[in-house]
Amino acid sequence: MKTTIMDMPLSIQMIFEHGRRLHANARVASFDGQAFQISRFADVAARAQALAAGLMAMGVSRGDRVGTYCWNRQEHLEAYLAVPCMGSVLHTLNIRLLPEQVARIMVHAGDTVLIVDRALIAQLAPVLNQVPTLEHVVIVGGVPDNLPALQAAVVGYDDLLASSSDRRDWPQHEERDAAVVCYTTGTTGDPKGIVYSHRSVFLHTLGTLGRDTFGIGQDDRILLLPSMFHANAWGLPYSAWFSGADLLLPREHLKAADLRRMVDLERPTITALVPTLMNDLLREDESEPLDLSCFRVIVSGGSAVSPGLIRRVRDRWGVSMLQGWGMTETSPMCCLSIPPREAAGDEQFEWRAKSGRPVPGMQVRLVDDEGSPVPEDGLHVGELQLRGPWVTGSYHGDASPESFTRDGWLRTGDVGTIDERGYVQITDRSKDVIKSGGEWVSSVDLENQLSEHPAVDEVAVIGIPDPRWEERPLALVVPRPGNTIDPAELQDFLDGRVARFWIPEYWSVTFALPKTSVNKIDKRALRAEFGEGRIHFSVCKPTKSV
Amino acid sequence: MKTTIMDMPLSIQMIFEHGRRLHANARVASFDGQAFQISRFADVAARAQALAAGLMAMGVSRGDRVGTYCWNRQEHLEAYLAVPCMGSVLHTLNIRLLPEQVARIMVHAGDTVLIVDRALIAQLAPVLNQVPTLEHVVIVGGVPDNLPALQAAVVGYDDLLASSSDRRDWPQHEERDAAVVCYTTGTTGDPKGIVYSHRSVFLHTLGTLGRDTFGIGQDDRILLLPSMFHANAWGLPYSAWFSGADLLLPREHLKAADLRRMVDLERPTITALVPTLMNDLLREDESEPLDLSCFRVIVSGGSAVSPGLIRRVRDRWGVSMLQGWGMTETSPMCCLSIPPREAAGDEQFEWRAKSGRPVPGMQVRLVDDEGSPVPEDGLHVGELQLRGPWVTGSYHGDASPESFTRDGWLRTGDVGTIDERGYVQITDRSKDVIKSGGEWVSSVDLENQLSEHPAVDEVAVIGIPDPRWEERPLALVVPRPGNTIDPAELQDFLDGRVARFWIPEYWSVTFALPKTSVNKIDKRALRAEFGEGRIHFSVCKPTKSV
Repeated sequence: MKTTIMDMPLSIQMIFEHGRRLHANARVASFDGQAFQISRFADVAARAQALAAGLMAMGVSRGDRVGTYCWNRQEHLEAYLAVPCMGSVLHTLNIRLLPEQVARIMVHAGDTVLIVDRALIAQLAPVLNQVPTLEHVVIVGGVPDNLPALQAAVVGYDDLLASSSDRRDWPQHEERDAAVVCYTTGTTGDPKGIVYSHRSVFLHTLGTLGRDTFGIGQDDRILLLPSMFHANAWGLPYSAWFSGADLLLPREHLKAADLRRMVDLERPTITALVPTLMNDLLREDESEPLDLSCFRVIVSGGSAVSPGLIRRVRDRWGVSMLQGWGMTETSPMCCLSIPPREAAGDEQFEWRAKSGRPVPGMQVRLVDDEGSPVPEDGLHVGELQLRGPWVTGSYHGDASPESFTRDGWLRTGDVGTIDERGYVQITDRSKDVIKSGGEWVSSVDLENQLSEHPAVDEVAVIGIPDPRWEERPLALVVPRPGNTIDPAELQDFLDGRVARFWIPEYWSVTFALPKTSVNKIDKRALRAEFGEGRIHFSVCKPTKSV
Repeated sequence: MKTTIMDMPLSIQMIFEHGRRLHANARVASFDGQAFQISRFADVAARAQALAAGLMAMGVSRGDRVGTYCWNRQEHLEAYLAVPCMGSVLHTLNIRLLPEQVARIMVHAGDTVLIVDRALIAQLAPVLNQVPTLEHVVIVGGVPDNLPALQAAVVGYDDLLASSSDRRDWPQHEERDAAVVCYTTGTTGDPKGIVYSHRSVFLHTLGTLGRDTFGIGQDDRILLLPSMFHANAWGLPYSAWFSGADLLLPREHLKAADLRRMVDLERPTITALVPTLMNDLLREDESEPLDLSCFRVIVSGGSAVSPGLIRRVRDRWGVSMLQGWGMTETSPMCCLSIPPREAAGDEQFEWRAKSGRPVPGMQVRLVDDEGSPVPEDGLHVGELQLRGPWVTGSYHGDASPESFTRDGWLRTGDVGTIDERGYVQITDRSKDVIKSGGEWVSSVDLENQLSEHPAVDEVAVIGIPDPRWEERPLALVVPRPGNTIDPAELQDFLDGRVARFWIPEYWSVTFALPKTSVNKIDKRALRAEFGEGRIHFSVCKPTKSV
């Protein structure tokens, strides 16, 4: 017996046509620092069609890579729609990497076109001639006068849109055709390319509309703080387009004062951010009250969020926070910390601080070093491995067999537990793991606990060599303004909250911690600095011994 | 450039494992007429695995068809899960068809196993020997003593589950493998088989979790009034399992008193029903107050629902109704009448009474008799055609080229409009269309308007031959208890609500209207009765002429 269901390729074209036709009045709002410039989906769709026509007239064809090097702005969204729909591959470049890194990644991906913000071209222009495949540079905002000589032809974005009036139907394609390529930020190694397919983007987008996932609907106004060059900005641009939610784009205006103004103007209902930014907003609120009560949910990701932070946000604004564990490799939605329905009252804060449970479609398992299953009891620690229809199974132009298991699961490099209900708790990046006297010490747990202390603004814990225990945790702490850090007091604070032997005796008080291009604390840099002897620390033995 | 995303077949197995692992504490509650018998998902999953093991031990293998002839009960859900996961094909049989029809459908599908309720075996047993492929009959509730001799082997359901302790991993399969076969009810012709694939069921289920679709989540308690033998009960059993929503199964207890008790006991949050039943509940409420305020939404489908009914439900209980237009051919979720976000206040009732707009993934278009596009302006009428990844493209063992267009769209046989925002309004089944003097008269609109009159309980409008106009509408009206019908008064009532020439001059007052097996008014039967001269009607010329 054969299925009678029609064979219809899943496609970003379906997302595009749905938003264009059914949500013509939904809005894309780009922030200019003072006000939002507002376009209707109908207008954005027409411009995306014009962009596709212009690119096709330029000779861009199926499978060609079109790079973007832009802030979160309307033209970037137009490229998100036009490039995959015309059968080419959107390549979102990370504007926070060094220009040389960007050029290397462009060479690796073989980009033939680059769409770039006028304000960003100056920093990238000097390296563009290193990209031999590059034929066209399209500048959003128009070509500046002082542009250095480029081998590629240069055109203004709006001129390109105006250049071709030839609107064609989207070409047919296979659902496994490449749609978007995104390189990891390389926190733990060289950037690696993940090539999303039309199928995987469609499935991920459908998944993000689920009521128990991001739950994006037509009543939402999404403040798009995640960068569109990083894992498709959590997939939210496509979620907005498929559901008819308003999309609020901050462009380069990401200071606390900008956020305040955007929130006041448009009262967004959902955003996603790193915990550091949530801390910044709480601090901003202390100096001048900030009204975030418009949010139905704030999703936090990139690094662990503490129950204390979640509680403060709830107490202050009545807003729920949700932790998301995901990565470029997972499109990125993977696990979300929606509490189980039986969680009552304050219990929710503990659940919301977990790494979360897999969303429908995702599968997670826990294995030991030999690849055997580890009990999923919330206690036993193992490596977390993932599988799902929007998870990468390889890297572009890189066999990387060590990143994948023989039976086809992604090795995340994250270490943690899975409990009876299927909730994941990351205890460490496998590269960040601290092994003290043969036992694991969780740097994430230590960081979470320390960040609950009122004097602590930011904290990072790394492992350092120790003559007796092989490795011991070193806590690097940034005090909150007007506070001083007393290691002995913090040790007392930790007592009873973590295992005794976890309590660090090595402490470093500092004014700032290094960050990666996506605003995560850069532990690789910390370890490197430590290795070069550039971190000063004190030794403070806990009063109660292990 | 090739996608790097892993190739993972979409599958009901993913739905099964997700619910089993992550929602072990969610509940399946079967109503025995007095109370709910409650099982946890974990228990149901173990029983589904036992069912699969028993069926495999019996020799059932990949691709074999396993029929079910059951009420909505836990064992039926177990079959929904076990049969596709083991690689066989679930065939849900309509218990309201004549036994001979059921046997013919079983022969057509080639069923080798039948799972049947003990209370239903008596009516079906006499025809089962007409199904030469049938090897096993599994009786839920145990084998009755007085069972007539069958060629097939007979076993009790629980005995089968106890018979095999051999639990195996689910076999691997392709995502386009057949999973479930369901025959249309044949309102307009012979039953036709639609064979859902693992892929189509997965996609449809993911779609039903969307916040702007059914929005099923773990906080839901689904009262499953739609029959599990009809279009997978709107897909809701799989939605519940994938999201961890409680599933409340009424079994054979579908009287108003049963509904009252089930609602009182478990306070469901969502159900789906035909408008007739909603009317019954409003009437029931008049005789003894009924508290339906627990519902967040009631989805109505099968036939058109009037703005008046939607308003009455909102006024009485504060509950939103949503119209769903779909069919067995569309899995069935297709269009839902969620109002556009800009709809204010009472406007919503008009929007909610529409047939709805396509959910993400579905596409609808409007064409004329020649297959050319009809303007989507809410005014021009054409045939509605559908496309989507969970829409059938053929019928099992039946070429049916007339049901599909050359470019691969399903011809729905429904006639209507699409407006600027993409909302569909069905005006008629193409077979029900009335053409009067060359102009279309919408039987659905007439029925909607007449059902708003306080004296009218039910109404059907069919076309009958007319010497002058070729065809004219005949209105068949069932009065509400204690009311009489005065055609002249109803004509006045229609005046200003519909075009003058639509107002019927032919009227028939009757005590009941014939229904199909899924409780739709059976217009085919009405037309047949009319053809045989068995419908008495009066002629009442409207006082104001056209």
